[in-house]
Amino acid sequence: MFFQLNRLYPMQLNFLVACLCLQVLPFLVFSAKVDTLEVPSAAMKKNLRAAVVLPESYQSAAQNKTPYPVLYLLHGGLGEFSDWLKKTPDKMLVQKLADQYNLIIVMPDGEPHGFYLDSPVKKDNLFETYVAKEVIEKIDNTYRTIRNRKGRVITGLSMGGHGAMYLAARHPDVYCAAGTMSGAIDLNPVNWGVTPEYKKQLEDLLTGIIGLSGTTPNYASYSVLQMTDKLKANGLKLIIDCGVDDLLIEPNRELHRRLVYNKTDHDYTERPGGHTWEYWQNSLPNHLMFFHKVLKANGSLTQ
Amino acid sequence: MFFQLNRLYPMQLNFLVACLCLQVLPFLVFSAKVDTLEVPSAAMKKNLRAAVVLPESYQSAAQNKTPYPVLYLLHGGLGEFSDWLKKTPDKMLVQKLADQYNLIIVMPDGEPHGFYLDSPVKKDNLFETYVAKEVIEKIDNTYRTIRNRKGRVITGLSMGGHGAMYLAARHPDVYCAAGTMSGAIDLNPVNWGVTPEYKKQLEDLLTGIIGLSGTTPNYASYSVLQMTDKLKANGLKLIIDCGVDDLLIEPNRELHRRLVYNKTDHDYTERPGGHTWEYWQNSLPNHLMFFHKVLKANGSLTQ
Amino acid sequence: MFFQLNRLYPMQLNFLVACLCLQVLPFLVFSAKVDTLEVPSAAMKKNLRAAVVLPESYQSAAQNKTPYPVLYLLHGGLGEFSDWLKKTPDKMLVQKLADQYNLIIVMPDGEPHGFYLDSPVKKDNLFETYVAKEVIEKIDNTYRTIRNRKGRVITGLSMGGHGAMYLAARHPDVYCAAGTMSGAIDLNPVNWGVTPEYKKQLEDLLTGIIGLSGTTPNYASYSVLQMTDKLKANGLKLIIDCGVDDLLIEPNRELHRRLVYNKTDHDYTERPGGHTWEYWQNSLPNHLMFFHKVLKANGSLTQ
Amino acid sequence: MFFQLNRLYPMQLNFLVACLCLQVLPFLVFSAKVDTLEVPSAAMKKNLRAAVVLPESYQSAAQNKTPYPVLYLLHGGLGEFSDWLKKTPDKMLVQKLADQYNLIIVMPDGEPHGFYLDSPVKKDNLFETYVAKEVIEKIDNTYRTIRNRKGRVITGLSMGGHGAMYLAARHPDVYCAAGTMSGAIDLNPVNWGVTPEYKKQLEDLLTGIIGLSGTTPNYASYSVLQMTDKLKANGLKLIIDCGVDDLLIEPNRELHRRLVYNKTDHDYTERPGGHTWEYWQNSLPNHLMFFHKVLKANGSLTQ
Repeated sequence: MFFQLNRLYPMQLNFLVACLCLQVLPFLVFSAKVDTLEVPSAAMKKNLRAAVVLPESYQSAAQNKTPYPVLYLLHGGLGEFSDWLKKTPDKMLVQKLADQYNLIIVMPDGEPHGFYLDSPVKKDNLFETYVAKEVIEKIDNTYRTIRNRKGRVITGLSMGGHGAMYLAARHPDVYCAAGTMSGAIDLNPVNWGVTPEYKKQLEDLLTGIIGLSGTTPNYASYSVLQMTDKLKANGLKLIIDCGVDDLLIEPNRELHRRLVYNKTDHDYTERPGGHTWEYWQNSLPNHLMFFHKVLKANGSLTQ
Repeated sequence: MFFQLNRLYPMQLNFLVACLCLQVLPFLVFSAKVDTLEVPSAAMKKNLRAAVVLPESYQSAAQNKTPYPVLYLLHGGLGEFSDWLKKTPDKMLVQKLADQYNLIIVMPDGEPHGFYLDSPVKKDNLFETYVAKEVIEKIDNTYRTIRNRKGRVITGLSMGGHGAMYLAARHPDVYCAAGTMSGAIDLNPVNWGVTPEYKKQLEDLLTGIIGLSGTTPNYASYSVLQMTDKLKANGLKLIIDCGVDDLLIEPNRELHRRLVYNKTDHDYTERPGGHTWEYWQNSLPNHLMFFHKVLKANGSLTQ
Repeated sequence: MFFQLNRLYPMQLNFLVACLCLQVLPFLVFSAKVDTLEVPSAAMKKNLRAAVVLPESYQSAAQNKTPYPVLYLLHGGLGEFSDWLKKTPDKMLVQKLADQYNLIIVMPDGEPHGFYLDSPVKKDNLFETYVAKEVIEKIDNTYRTIRNRKGRVITGLSMGGHGAMYLAARHPDVYCAAGTMSGAIDLNPVNWGVTPEYKKQLEDLLTGIIGLSGTTPNYASYSVLQMTDKLKANGLKLIIDCGVDDLLIEPNRELHRRLVYNKTDHDYTERPGGHTWEYWQNSLPNHLMFFHKVLKANGSLTQ
Repeated sequence: MFFQLNRLYPMQLNFLVACLCLQVLPFLVFSAKVDTLEVPSAAMKKNLRAAVVLPESYQSAAQNKTPYPVLYLLHGGLGEFSDWLKKTPDKMLVQKLADQYNLIIVMPDGEPHGFYLDSPVKKDNLFETYVAKEVIEKIDNTYRTIRNRKGRVITGLSMGGHGAMYLAARHPDVYCAAGTMSGAIDLNPVNWGVTPEYKKQLEDLLTGIIGLSGTTPNYASYSVLQMTDKLKANGLKLIIDCGVDDLLIEPNRELHRRLVYNKTDHDYTERPGGHTWEYWQNSLPNHLMFFHKVLKANGSLTQ
């Protein structure tokens, strides 16, 4: 079929194809489809939603038996599952990237302060179980996905950047690669560029989620910054970035240094910008390019 | 014309287009064209060649009045103009990127040890004049290019990474953005990860090109590392990366730190890898993505 | 004796004493006394020796009821208890410092590869028990010492720098302050500036002492670099230094960064020099000055 | 008993006690002498004062032909010549150090905002000429000093830390060693930990002293941070420290990194503390210990 078209309209196709290869396609007509899915949590006994972006090719006849890789894309603190579709300056960013890289992008809900972990103290805060198990089962049962780690990657911003690294570090059987943008990769706010009052609020909030170790929140057990040995041993593919004006730049620099020190492979980038959607819009395509290479090396690209 | 095709074969086209959007197209039939161009240097009174990759769209009828942005892509030490076409593991990398981002990629010759500078001591080493003036005039007179800084970007590897930053820093009227991969951004080899013998050889070599300042090669006048104030003042868009196992990682870290310190916007990345073509093949698409954003913001994308 | 001399030879004494004010006293006549003490280990069932330097004042009539603070000064790998007395360029350095700061300096034996820890695999390698318990009991029972943490400080070089920090971190009830010069504060040699062959030898050696954790030596349980939370919680006074050309500079920089990151008070110094006795001779007086301030604040100076 | 001895041999004992080598002598009775000296500036046509601390030994008969080394000790911004005598918690600190290390300590006046430089715009701000030439001539003509660089060292705090490094870097013929405590070694306040309003005030203030380079104060010509090549070439002995909570810690870290990068020997220390007299009282004895070693190696100690 490809060659038929080719034979018939070579010149026009040349042009067409060349245009469509642009990273951003101003006159894109065929685009990814967005589902909003109920993904209930049996563990937490509550209903939550997820947004699922299916690339255009997913629905075409030719692809209907082909499994797709999936990117899990996590929102930040105070956010929800739809953030990545509503808050980037370019409202079609996620759809375009799903089409460009031909993968499914799933945006689960981690609640405003769920931190993507199973709380030892707050019994309806089991977001590790939810995202790394329940959501994945639901997605794998609902869509044509590659049902193993080689086809799953995960990233996110801020609280979701921490969440992505945390879940991948603890579930290397589930994901093959993880990313973080402006990640809160040290839950301890001591090196966050925020006011003392805000640090106090964060400590109180986190105490309610991760519990205490002695008299302080149990940062050591739940912070990605303390999991560098695990990240090294896991051999996960990692991409980490942060804006130089971000309130979280110091923890991210520290994570980078420790990963350099213990010789854990990772991509690390600092860019202009702060803790903003402009930054994350700028960052996300780099994560997709990175994950694309990982998936390709895994043989997990959809043909 | 686009919609005509669309009307006729919508389903097939969907599939086709989706496939072609992949970053790397394993069965690409239509591809960029490569010219090898004589670009003589009046200044140096010698003939040199350049490789020019024209994106597929460049030759199509519809585009025949549209000017194209140009990426100048420099080779490293001991190399030549054709390196980027011959030495990457994927021999079609540059062509694919030209197609994907729809720009012209020019690879001039900087000789094995030209260092892309006008030597104060070696009279036939005028590669600043050559690349930043003679090559550009030739390219602008030969192809449909955007004939101003807003449509010109420059990057390179190793000696060429230094060259790209050096030329852009000194000619912000010519280029709007610069990049460096594994750049020799400090010509002084004192912090290069090489043997003392090799450092000595480099010093001797550089003495013959940049001359002496007192009893040592005049590194201070010719090294990008010493030009951070200029880079800040110029407001160039900058992308810098280096492998953590590269012999040039320390100078690149130092450049990054100084640019952070003097608050010069730039993208800085460390990745796994050394001073190898695998690394540069991995790096180059990130530079293209970066430059694409710059050119887009400049209104310099070819429609 | 002091007063007798004083009465008999006042003029000479003036001159003599004036000379004693110099940090380094070229023709010192009255000096600290050096004991070589058998300090058997019941735990290891072997006899080991320690050198003990008693300041001049210790033996004078006026001081005969006053307890003295004690500095425990540890030797490095391949060394023994007498190193600090024999290997510094100035063979009287330790004696002079004991006199200048008026404290007892004890140099126990940690065997060439004892690492000042209780080995989980080598049953006659119980140097934590030995140095932090058996040696202290012997010293406290033999000399007029301040018999609590407020009068005990500990430092050392290389393996002994690690040992001093390790013992103090684990026994804050025993010591009030710790130092390290050129310390092997990360037992994992991955960031040591040594050849791959030497790293392999070290790994084999350490495997025999700290045992395995999985397939690698159990660095995580025994390295000071992994004990920064403990150091913070302990509130020990800490002094850390290393030469910029030392093979251990990177681990020491990493320790400093982590202590800055987790906001643990400490003095950190980089100086010219490598892993040499010239360096340690230069460094030790700074440790004494530091400990003197700590002891003074503790009310532990001998009047 | 002490006083009995004192009655019997007063002169000799004075000397004896002064020399007792203890870093801090709680019962010190006889101490160094402090002169307040008029040191007019012919260059600036104004009168300024300096404090001069002469060690006890300076006045004794035995020493009366011996030249003494001199430490020049500079005050900070908003300060004056008497600061070091009045503002340290221990009001006798400078005297004790003069006695302990047996040198003369001179504290010239640099005005609240003189910055120890010859202003290109403010004609009565010629503090480089004043301190490095006029003060030295006056001191050398008034006291028994070692009249060459081998016997002169210089340090200071904050503005005076910058001043000490700046003057030594530019006058290696005058001084053999320089130090800085919490030094304002980058006059550009961009990386100072102060409010934007304060930065603006500083910029205005500095514009009035160092003039403009283009539209910004001429930081590049007057900041020590920009003089690392000179410091390397000079071969001066350098000691640099700063508190981790000091508003100037970042510029000092940057200076250290650049001196490590260009391989300039120097001692660099970070300690607990901020921009306070407690910090400087803690720091100064370390500078004296450092300078003592330098002077000893120069053969410039007073016997």
